Amino acid sequence: MRNILIIGAGRSATSLIKYLLDKSEAEELFITIGDISIQNAQKFTSDHPNARGILLDVFNDPQRREAVENSDIVISMLPARFHIEVARDCIEFGKHLVTASYISDQMQMLHPKAKAKGLVFMNEIGLDPGIDHMSAMQVIDRIRAQGGKMLLFESFTGGLIAPESDNNLWNYKFTWNPRNVVLAGQGGAAEFIQEAKFKYIPYHRLFRRTEFIDIEGHGKFEVYANRNSLKYQSVYGLKDILTLYRGTIRRVGFSKAWNMFVQLGMTDDSYIMPDSENLSYRAFVNAFLPYSPTDTVELKLRHNLKIEQDDLMWEKLEELDIFNPDKFIGIKDATPAMALQKILEDKWTLDKKDKDMIVMYHKFGYELNGKKHQIDSNMVLVGEDQTYTSMAKTVGLPVAIAALKILNEEITTPGVQLPINKEVYEPILKELEDFGIIFKEKETMYLGYNPDNIVG
Amino acid sequence: MRNILIIGAGRSATSLIKYLLDKSEAEELFITIGDISIQNAQKFTSDHPNARGILLDVFNDPQRREAVENSDIVISMLPARFHIEVARDCIEFGKHLVTASYISDQMQMLHPKAKAKGLVFMNEIGLDPGIDHMSAMQVIDRIRAQGGKMLLFESFTGGLIAPESDNNLWNYKFTWNPRNVVLAGQGGAAEFIQEAKFKYIPYHRLFRRTEFIDIEGHGKFEVYANRNSLKYQSVYGLKDILTLYRGTIRRVGFSKAWNMFVQLGMTDDSYIMPDSENLSYRAFVNAFLPYSPTDTVELKLRHNLKIEQDDLMWEKLEELDIFNPDKFIGIKDATPAMALQKILEDKWTLDKKDKDMIVMYHKFGYELNGKKHQIDSNMVLVGEDQTYTSMAKTVGLPVAIAALKILNEEITTPGVQLPINKEVYEPILKELEDFGIIFKEKETMYLGYNPDNIVG
Repeated sequence: MRNILIIGAGRSATSLIKYLLDKSEAEELFITIGDISIQNAQKFTSDHPNARGILLDVFNDPQRREAVENSDIVISMLPARFHIEVARDCIEFGKHLVTASYISDQMQMLHPKAKAKGLVFMNEIGLDPGIDHMSAMQVIDRIRAQGGKMLLFESFTGGLIAPESDNNLWNYKFTWNPRNVVLAGQGGAAEFIQEAKFKYIPYHRLFRRTEFIDIEGHGKFEVYANRNSLKYQSVYGLKDILTLYRGTIRRVGFSKAWNMFVQLGMTDDSYIMPDSENLSYRAFVNAFLPYSPTDTVELKLRHNLKIEQDDLMWEKLEELDIFNPDKFIGIKDATPAMALQKILEDKWTLDKKDKDMIVMYHKFGYELNGKKHQIDSNMVLVGEDQTYTSMAKTVGLPVAIAALKILNEEITTPGVQLPINKEVYEPILKELEDFGIIFKEKETMYLGYNPDNIVG
Repeated sequence: MRNILIIGAGRSATSLIKYLLDKSEAEELFITIGDISIQNAQKFTSDHPNARGILLDVFNDPQRREAVENSDIVISMLPARFHIEVARDCIEFGKHLVTASYISDQMQMLHPKAKAKGLVFMNEIGLDPGIDHMSAMQVIDRIRAQGGKMLLFESFTGGLIAPESDNNLWNYKFTWNPRNVVLAGQGGAAEFIQEAKFKYIPYHRLFRRTEFIDIEGHGKFEVYANRNSLKYQSVYGLKDILTLYRGTIRRVGFSKAWNMFVQLGMTDDSYIMPDSENLSYRAFVNAFLPYSPTDTVELKLRHNLKIEQDDLMWEKLEELDIFNPDKFIGIKDATPAMALQKILEDKWTLDKKDKDMIVMYHKFGYELNGKKHQIDSNMVLVGEDQTYTSMAKTVGLPVAIAALKILNEEITTPGVQLPINKEVYEPILKELEDFGIIFKEKETMYLGYNPDNIVG
C-alpha cells in the first residue's frame, strides 16, 4: 500500500478524492484525508476500505508532522498561504508534494533542498494555474519543434454558470470563492504587451477595456485583462513576443455592469464602514452618492452613473434588490467589498440543481518559414452537479493525476516544479481527455492583435 | 543671546528666516541655519551679524547632535519623515521643537518625555496643517463660549497661481511640491460626513465629485474632498457634528481636466514603465490607450475619454504638448506619475515674475438658543515674489512666531502639541494679520450641506 495524504477537503477536492478512491484498489493506494472539520474529512471516506478521514489542523505541529511522516506523498489543497508548513515537513521527512497554487517565494526557496533529496514538489497544477500552463506549453513546444517563432500569445479563463442554469440578468453566479470575484483586478494596473508596446489599464477602467471572443458552439464572451500577463514572458520563454495578454472570461455585458460597483467605490476593501452591521442595502448604496435632502437614492445613482431610462444596467441593479431599506448587511466591521459580497450572495448563490462551466481559450500566433500562422484552442467543460463541478474537476483532476504519476515514478524531475515540461503535461493532458477536459484546436488566419475587437 | 537652530533652508523657509532675522537684534536672537547645501544655508545669512549658515546633514549623528545641543530651540523644516531624529535629540538635550508637519505616531510617543522635561514640541503649525487649525478653532471656541452647538464644519485650502500670473488653460502652476500635486487624493477613498451620513468617494471619482465655493472679491473656485476629514472629529471635538468635510481648492475646471490623467492611469505611482527614459511624451500617452495599427493617439484618446470636438479639455491637453513624439521623459525607472510630473513641469513651472496665492475657506454651522446660524470665513494671500511667496509666508510665519513665543515663555504648555488651544492660536493669528494673513468673516443663512453645489 502507498499512502497519500490529502490536506483540505473543501469544494475543490471532490473530483481529486474520487479519482484517487476509484484507483485505490488497482493502484494499491491508501488515502488519508485531513481537514479541520472531521465531517468534511470523512464525507467521502466513511465506507471505503482504502481511505480514512482524520482531523488535521495545519497549525497543530505534532498532528501535521505525524500525518506527513506516515504518507508517501502529500497533496495540499489548503489556501496558498498555508502550504509552506506542509512543504517544510515534506523536506524533513522526504515526501513528495503536490499543490494547485502559484509558487510563492517561500516555496521557491525550498527548491535546492527538494532537489537534493530527490523530491518532486509539483505546484500550479490545477486549472489556472495548471491546465492553462499545460495546454499552452503543449502548443508552444509543438510550434517551436517545427521551427516556428512565437509572435502572439493570448490566454483567457473563466469560471461561469452553465447556460442551462443561467437565469439572472448578470449571466453570472458565484461558482468559486465570492471574495476573489469581488476583489478581482485590484492591486495595481493590468500590464500587457500588444504589438510590441507595453500597455497599462488602471483598475477603474479594467471593466470597460474588455474585448470579445467567439467560441464555436458557445457564442460570444467578453474578457478583461489580468494584472500579471508579463510574468509569463519568462515562464513560457516568450522573450521577444509581440503580443502577450491574459484575461478573465465573462458573459457579454457582465463587465460593463460590474463597472458600476467599481465606479461607485463598492469594491474597496481598504476601510471599514462604521456600523456596517446595521447598514441597510439602501444606506450602503447611498454612502457612495452625494447627500440630498430630497432626491431618491435611485435618481442619484442614475444621475451619478449616467444610466438612461432604457438601459438594462438598471434592471441588473434592481434584480439585486440593492435599494431595499429593509435588508441589512449584518456583518460587523465590513469593508465596502464585504458588504457588496453579502448583497451579491443573496442572488448569485448556486441553486441546488445549478451547474457551473469552465471556459478556457488560447490564441497562438507564430511565424514559420516566413509565413504567419495562428492557432486558436479552447476548452469548455460543464459540471455534473454541485459536488462534481467543472471547477472541482479542472482543479482537482490534474492534481490527482500528477500525484499518482509521481508516486509511480512517471514524473521524476526533482525540485520545486510547475507543469511546463512535456514529461509532465503530455500524459496529464491525455488522461484529462477521459474526463471531458478536451481542447479543440483550429488554424485561423493570423490576425495579430485585432483592434476591431475593442469595446468602449 | 538665545540660539535658534533652523534645520532645512528650502523654499518654505524664506519668510520664517526673514521674520527671525528682523527680530534678532531686538529679541537678542542668534540664528543658525543648517542645510544639506551650505549655499542654501548661507543664502540669507552671509552679511548678517546675528546669523550663520552651516552644513548640516540630518543623518550625520554627531553633526546634528552638536547643532541641537548648542541651541535653545530647534525648528525643523525638513520633510516630515526626518523630524524624529531631531526630536529625539531635543528630548536628550532638553530643547524645544517646532515643526509644520502632521504629528507622526513616532512623534506622539515622545509626548510623555517632552512633558516630563517641560519641553514644548509644537507641530502642525504651518499653513495646512497650521493656520487652518488656528483659524477654525478660534471660531469654534467662540461659538462654544456663547453656548452654541456645532452642526457643520467645512474647510478648504488651496495653493494656487495668483490671477495676475494665471496665463495657462489649466489656471494652475506648481507653486509647491509637484510630486504631491500629482499624487493628491491617492491612497484610499475620501471619507466625510454630510448631514450625519458617512460618505465615501473613491480616488477615480474624486475629481468629478467637486463642489463650487464663492469667495467675495475673488470669484468662484472648486473643491475636491480630502481623504482624512473624519480625524478632525476628535482633534476639534466635533463628536456629533452633522457635516464634516475638508477639501482642496482649485480654479474652476481644473479637476475635471485633471481627471483625464486619473482616468487614463497616468497618476499611478506603483509600477515602473520599462525604458521610461526613452519614452516620448506621445508613446507615454499611447501606453494607456488600446493598440491600433491605423488610428492616431489623438483620436484614440478623444474616443477613450469621450472628448467632443468643441471641448476645451482638448486644448488643455494640447497646451501640455503631450502628443509630441520628439520630447522624451528622460527619467530612468519612472513610474507613470513621475513621467506625468515631468510633462507638467515643462509648462506649469513658475515664470520669474509669477506670484502665487493661498486661499483658505471655512464654513461653521451651529445652533444657538434654538436657532441655526452660519459663519463663513476666508483668507486670501498673494505672494510678493518668488522668494517671499504666499506659501512661504503662510507656512513659515506661524512657525517663526510660535518659536519666538515659546522662547519668550508666552507659549508654555509642555509636550507634543498642535495649535488648537487659545493660548497658542490667539496671539499668533493676531500677529499674522500684520503680514496680511487676515480672515474675513461673514454671517450667512444656515444652509446645512447645500446639495445645489454638487457638480457631476
